[in-house]
Amino acid sequence: MFAEIITIGDEILIGQIIDTNSAYIAQELNKIGISVFQISSVQDNKDHILLALKEAESRADIIIVTGGLGPTKDDITKFTICEYFGDTLVQDTEVLRHLEDLFKNYFSAPISEINRKQALVPSKAIVLKNEFGTAPGMWLEKGDKIFVSLPGVPFEMKGLMLNEVIPKLLRDFKREYILHKTFITYGVGESTIAEKIATWEDGLPNFIKLAYLPNLGMVRLRLTAKGGDNTVLDKAVEAESKKLYGLIGDIIYGEEDGDSLEGLVAKVMTQKGMTLAIAESFTGGKIAQQITAIPGASAYFKGGIVSYATETKIEVLHVAPELVKKHSVVSKEVAESMAINVRKMMKSDFAIATTGNAGPTKGDSDADVGSVFIAIASPSGVSAQRFTMGNHRERIVQKSVNKAFELLQKEILKF
Amino acid sequence: MFAEIITIGDEILIGQIIDTNSAYIAQELNKIGISVFQISSVQDNKDHILLALKEAESRADIIIVTGGLGPTKDDITKFTICEYFGDTLVQDTEVLRHLEDLFKNYFSAPISEINRKQALVPSKAIVLKNEFGTAPGMWLEKGDKIFVSLPGVPFEMKGLMLNEVIPKLLRDFKREYILHKTFITYGVGESTIAEKIATWEDGLPNFIKLAYLPNLGMVRLRLTAKGGDNTVLDKAVEAESKKLYGLIGDIIYGEEDGDSLEGLVAKVMTQKGMTLAIAESFTGGKIAQQITAIPGASAYFKGGIVSYATETKIEVLHVAPELVKKHSVVSKEVAESMAINVRKMMKSDFAIATTGNAGPTKGDSDADVGSVFIAIASPSGVSAQRFTMGNHRERIVQKSVNKAFELLQKEILKF
Repeated sequence: MFAEIITIGDEILIGQIIDTNSAYIAQELNKIGISVFQISSVQDNKDHILLALKEAESRADIIIVTGGLGPTKDDITKFTICEYFGDTLVQDTEVLRHLEDLFKNYFSAPISEINRKQALVPSKAIVLKNEFGTAPGMWLEKGDKIFVSLPGVPFEMKGLMLNEVIPKLLRDFKREYILHKTFITYGVGESTIAEKIATWEDGLPNFIKLAYLPNLGMVRLRLTAKGGDNTVLDKAVEAESKKLYGLIGDIIYGEEDGDSLEGLVAKVMTQKGMTLAIAESFTGGKIAQQITAIPGASAYFKGGIVSYATETKIEVLHVAPELVKKHSVVSKEVAESMAINVRKMMKSDFAIATTGNAGPTKGDSDADVGSVFIAIASPSGVSAQRFTMGNHRERIVQKSVNKAFELLQKEILKF
Repeated sequence: MFAEIITIGDEILIGQIIDTNSAYIAQELNKIGISVFQISSVQDNKDHILLALKEAESRADIIIVTGGLGPTKDDITKFTICEYFGDTLVQDTEVLRHLEDLFKNYFSAPISEINRKQALVPSKAIVLKNEFGTAPGMWLEKGDKIFVSLPGVPFEMKGLMLNEVIPKLLRDFKREYILHKTFITYGVGESTIAEKIATWEDGLPNFIKLAYLPNLGMVRLRLTAKGGDNTVLDKAVEAESKKLYGLIGDIIYGEEDGDSLEGLVAKVMTQKGMTLAIAESFTGGKIAQQITAIPGASAYFKGGIVSYATETKIEVLHVAPELVKKHSVVSKEVAESMAINVRKMMKSDFAIATTGNAGPTKGDSDADVGSVFIAIASPSGVSAQRFTMGNHRERIVQKSVNKAFELLQKEILKF
């Protein structure tokens, strides 16, 4: 059973927004054993939407459409789907009541004429209640094929996927099992890994596929198994994982269940009851931001100091001015001092510190663009290392953040 | 002249990665007047890639393909494109030399067998040199149609787009002009705006389109004009903009040239020679991170304190414990104290402070999830406001960050 995703909106095709909806929908469908065949992003244009629906119908059993359900004139998805089904629009009294409630509670105003039209739905559609917005979801069937239309606002789309679409698919359909297992490796390139595991890769059973996903110093290896028997898949993937660890266990940093590097850090920190503080220079708050994006961070995260300016490093983080003068602000010594001081100020078990130059021009030091120091302080001391992270600002920051989590994780595991 | 983008990779279709390449490519093509008709993400599967190439060729003049060019077994794009063109692979000596140099300089090792194959290209292809990686870009022509194949690693793809593809398109083709102008509004919903500007919208010339892009408390309004004469487009968009300001100028916060809210803040701060410090609680470093993501932030950004734990607010930010005890840590008083103190500690002109509860559970206070305070301190004093941001962690943070930039911008403009 295959699904296709169609995202509708000119803003995607001019690159003004990145389509994040498709990845979310694909993840949720995969979890329940439905593979996505193709994702297509098309314009707010009737003929184009009709063509995309037709092409998707020819390839897939379930077609999930997002976007173009707003109340304004550029939103035409509902009318176009209605035409595709040769259907007419009728007013849904429950949706209308929901709209009236929303307006009363949130805007203290009667419903406007333009929003009243949000209660119109194709007569053949099963309405999916959108608790978080004005545009209802719609479920339509055509022979064996299912068409689902969802709003493009990610928050509303997610609510409808979780509360309506996934439960209904689970209830109504028998699906093949899909099992993914992803290994995070670091420090070694894609092609070197490929050579080390070539024989094993060639010997994988035909229902297991391997993919290499390189990104900013890490390579993820993903095994995907498909079949009718969950137990068989589980056992086979488990057996292959063991073989893989035998070959490259020394570079496998962790496994991923949608888990990020900082997610792994969070797990270990929480388990061990340890705490963390962060002093950031060129990473500008990104380490703290990624840590706090994980619910429950308050259990182990004390806080951070973003000492962007040199004077902030001296006056707030109490790095000795002589140290800066002697070694420069981008140096092993300053990184170590930052880590020691923030650990002390925030009374934490561990601390991360970063100092470096992310470019595009040289900053408060003569350090080359891409030259960075990352320090980890722990109950047993402090140690900083120098890295060269290329010359692309965004990548320098993200690679350094990844590296900081890697170094921290290694250090925590010693305690 | 239309383009289509095809992104290749199973990791996109299982939702493991978000396709950010398409938005970048679409933006760059739009800048030079090439519209993107459709974006399709397809599997690492020969038949599927062949089908996608055929469909795209039937609709567009330029087909840009990314992904599937790695050296490992799951990467089949090059072989499939070669088959689509009925071509054979030949070794490119320049690419081979580049590979040998890369290996010598970065890995201090001779080139591996698996990477040597990266120098094979279809005989009819014009090779586009990939300075940043091992897989070359390829440019192939078939009658009037152009096919470009680029690596999926965003950094490598971007280098090839900027250094090779865009210059070649500019040199070889006459294109229609495309002009976008985007207005950022806040505080008023999409449908209310639509009612206020309905008559104006209906009267827009047929070569100008309007789109509504609502997101987290803001609505962007985008005008898109297309035509053969740049001057005509400029004038018409200018005239319509003036009319729009006449209707809703009071809620237009700024205009966007790919500019973000914090980009607008950065511009004004730099112009005025003012400086900024930040004290963040539940926003966890995200305000600092967005500020420092903009090159040149060091001109105005002194630094920030992420005082996630209450004790960090007291011990590092020097918020009085009595204040926390009397008003709770999520209060107007604590937000204002945080802003005043961080402004003083970092000797900045302005300061932002946030305290609140982003959930999912209640934290160090009794404040409801979604209840937040944002304070702005300036040379003339301090003021905090309370906001209710819903009950979704990620959205609470992002809406609060947006709101903080909005409040700061308003305050700066007074000086």
